[in-house]
Amino acid sequence: MFKNIGLEYRDILVLGVAGVVIGAAVGVLDAVFGRILNYCTEIRLEYFSWLIFFLPLAGAAIVGLYRKLGKSAAKGMNLVFQVGLGEAPGLPVRMVPLAMICTWITHLFGGSAGREGVAIQIGAAVSSNVERFAGKWWNIRERKQIFLITGMAAGFSGLFQTPLAAIFFSLEVLIVGQLEYSALFPASVAAFTAGAISGQLGITKFHMEIAHGYGISLSFMLKLVVLGLIFGIVGTLFAEGIRQVRSRLNAVFTGHPFRKVIIVGCILAVLILALHQGRYSGTGESLAELCFSGGEIYWYDWFLKGILTILTLSAGFVGGEVAPLFTIGACLGTVLAPLFGLPAPLVQALGYTAVFGSGTNTLIAAILVGSEVFGYGMLPYLAVTCITAYIFNLNKSIFSAQKKSMLQYLKERMKLEGEDE
Amino acid sequence: MFKNIGLEYRDILVLGVAGVVIGAAVGVLDAVFGRILNYCTEIRLEYFSWLIFFLPLAGAAIVGLYRKLGKSAAKGMNLVFQVGLGEAPGLPVRMVPLAMICTWITHLFGGSAGREGVAIQIGAAVSSNVERFAGKWWNIRERKQIFLITGMAAGFSGLFQTPLAAIFFSLEVLIVGQLEYSALFPASVAAFTAGAISGQLGITKFHMEIAHGYGISLSFMLKLVVLGLIFGIVGTLFAEGIRQVRSRLNAVFTGHPFRKVIIVGCILAVLILALHQGRYSGTGESLAELCFSGGEIYWYDWFLKGILTILTLSAGFVGGEVAPLFTIGACLGTVLAPLFGLPAPLVQALGYTAVFGSGTNTLIAAILVGSEVFGYGMLPYLAVTCITAYIFNLNKSIFSAQKKSMLQYLKERMKLEGEDE
Repeated sequence: MFKNIGLEYRDILVLGVAGVVIGAAVGVLDAVFGRILNYCTEIRLEYFSWLIFFLPLAGAAIVGLYRKLGKSAAKGMNLVFQVGLGEAPGLPVRMVPLAMICTWITHLFGGSAGREGVAIQIGAAVSSNVERFAGKWWNIRERKQIFLITGMAAGFSGLFQTPLAAIFFSLEVLIVGQLEYSALFPASVAAFTAGAISGQLGITKFHMEIAHGYGISLSFMLKLVVLGLIFGIVGTLFAEGIRQVRSRLNAVFTGHPFRKVIIVGCILAVLILALHQGRYSGTGESLAELCFSGGEIYWYDWFLKGILTILTLSAGFVGGEVAPLFTIGACLGTVLAPLFGLPAPLVQALGYTAVFGSGTNTLIAAILVGSEVFGYGMLPYLAVTCITAYIFNLNKSIFSAQKKSMLQYLKERMKLEGEDE
Repeated sequence: MFKNIGLEYRDILVLGVAGVVIGAAVGVLDAVFGRILNYCTEIRLEYFSWLIFFLPLAGAAIVGLYRKLGKSAAKGMNLVFQVGLGEAPGLPVRMVPLAMICTWITHLFGGSAGREGVAIQIGAAVSSNVERFAGKWWNIRERKQIFLITGMAAGFSGLFQTPLAAIFFSLEVLIVGQLEYSALFPASVAAFTAGAISGQLGITKFHMEIAHGYGISLSFMLKLVVLGLIFGIVGTLFAEGIRQVRSRLNAVFTGHPFRKVIIVGCILAVLILALHQGRYSGTGESLAELCFSGGEIYWYDWFLKGILTILTLSAGFVGGEVAPLFTIGACLGTVLAPLFGLPAPLVQALGYTAVFGSGTNTLIAAILVGSEVFGYGMLPYLAVTCITAYIFNLNKSIFSAQKKSMLQYLKERMKLEGEDE
């Protein structure tokens, strides 16, 4: 028995060291990625009316880069999920520079997209290669999966500075309802390390302390539930929209990715320019800040941000979906707050959090991200709204490779193993 | 597709109604159970030096009651787990009065035990019978499990007034790492309903707002981790201790439960009387309150509370393990705080929470219970300590029927189904 405990503690130790190494490397990369991205945004804000005209060409450059150099890396987030689920062997190093550069290009020329998915790809690619190296002299069960989750947690935390949400996001996102606790320790170490290091290197957290202490009356609870229902449906529509538009565009432009990105890029450029001149470019963080600072928010902001992000990502540009989900929720919350007779910051925070949870089909990560951004006192309200949103999102997710249940996962694993024979 | 959504929403609605019914019934029962238990405690405090001499006889009465009327209900928490895992068909109604009365007896005569496990049994037994009734005209997949989890959440929340911890406790406790999200909706409804109703009926929450805002320095983080390691090991020792002592006593007294409860009851009565005259009787909540109010705590309090609870429950008395775990953690925290140079209330709260998490082998429930009791601002510190405790508890749990992984669960399910043929 003591020998087993000794071995178990040795493995924990190795995983802890791996967590520090991965966290540190990803923290530095996240800082480089995030700071240059901020710089791209500044340039775009200054020269927007020029840059937006080059959006279609920028798209062509991205498609070209991935076709020339991408290989399997072109599958992006899907490949990350496949490795995490044991369906692909590993992630190429090239994923890191490609995803970074192409996201910078997308943002510089005014596309509407996030960055979190990219940070997760960076983390996953780094950890997958650390795993390949460590695997030469050390082996434990489910090693690939454990390292992948560790890297995802580091990538999320390094960019967002929300370590707890990052840990639970990567533990819960692969298979619905299944927490990969074998990765809990390295993922925690990596998330805190990456957050600390990227913080030292100048990455800041979006933080907005919201007044709380509303008590829990029945009518207030019911309002939280109805809001959760609405946010849940909007998150689902976004996830389903991205899937539908992507597959329709692929059907129309089969075998012509350049034609697709240039034609859709032209339409996008015109729309982004015409609709309040770049209001919907980039991550939308400035729009979210506008919500919380009481600036002017139009009733259709959430909708346009959603449509333009779906178009940007379906056309072939590169970026994440998380920040747009936050923005959609905050804008929608601004519209809904007076209808429900509730304070605007409260409903904005609920929307920010619940639309993210619904769109990514994660629950604990959503509750934690909201708590880390808006203050832990918000947790009970966030929990009620996020639970409702989670129930009414009908199991849709922006991550099309996510497994919807342990049963589905096991069935497909068995089928795969059957094919191997 | 719309037909499916319609059906899905109809099922959600039925589950919601079931959640309200179960939550209301369990809330009332929890209130009756909790208030009479408090009354028993008052009487014990007044007449302790008389009552403690009857502890062995009280034990004999409990054994007699279960032997005469108990049938399968005698398996207590194990039976609850078996139903939750599909290994047993349902819980008998008699479980409710038996568990309540025998816990009152245990507490009245000075045994050292909790009450939470009993509240969970009450909730589970109620919901299992509602399920049997509802099952006559309505069916969904995994119905038994969903109802059971709903009842457990109601039982926990009704007694403790911590609905969020109750929801996640019942979702995560059956199988490690697996959250039964199919029960998320009814469990949430039932937990909030039971909490609201038992609150109306006079059940109060143990609440202690702890100052927070320590920031996150590396040395502070390391202290939290080392504390987590210690609390994790103590929780494991308690869980393993209860298993070992129970099986040893059963081996010594095979076929003689009366002899067991009377002999061990005599030893217990002497010990409980000799060791500070009843300081360790009951749930230990008064001891935990003494910790937080700065009263005198001996360095061995945590240890004696643990030993006496293990003896009480192994002898054949009835009660829970959760409140004693809280108390052990708070007392140990009092001892450790000066050694770590940290404020006593902080370390007490960390111990209260992490020893519970380690002993029950739950993570999210532990973090949430601590947040609901000590204030949400404590969440990040609780998370770091609880994660560490969870990792170093080596997968031990006071619930011997808990499944340690999805894989173990599926293997045993398949074996069971094979036997059925």
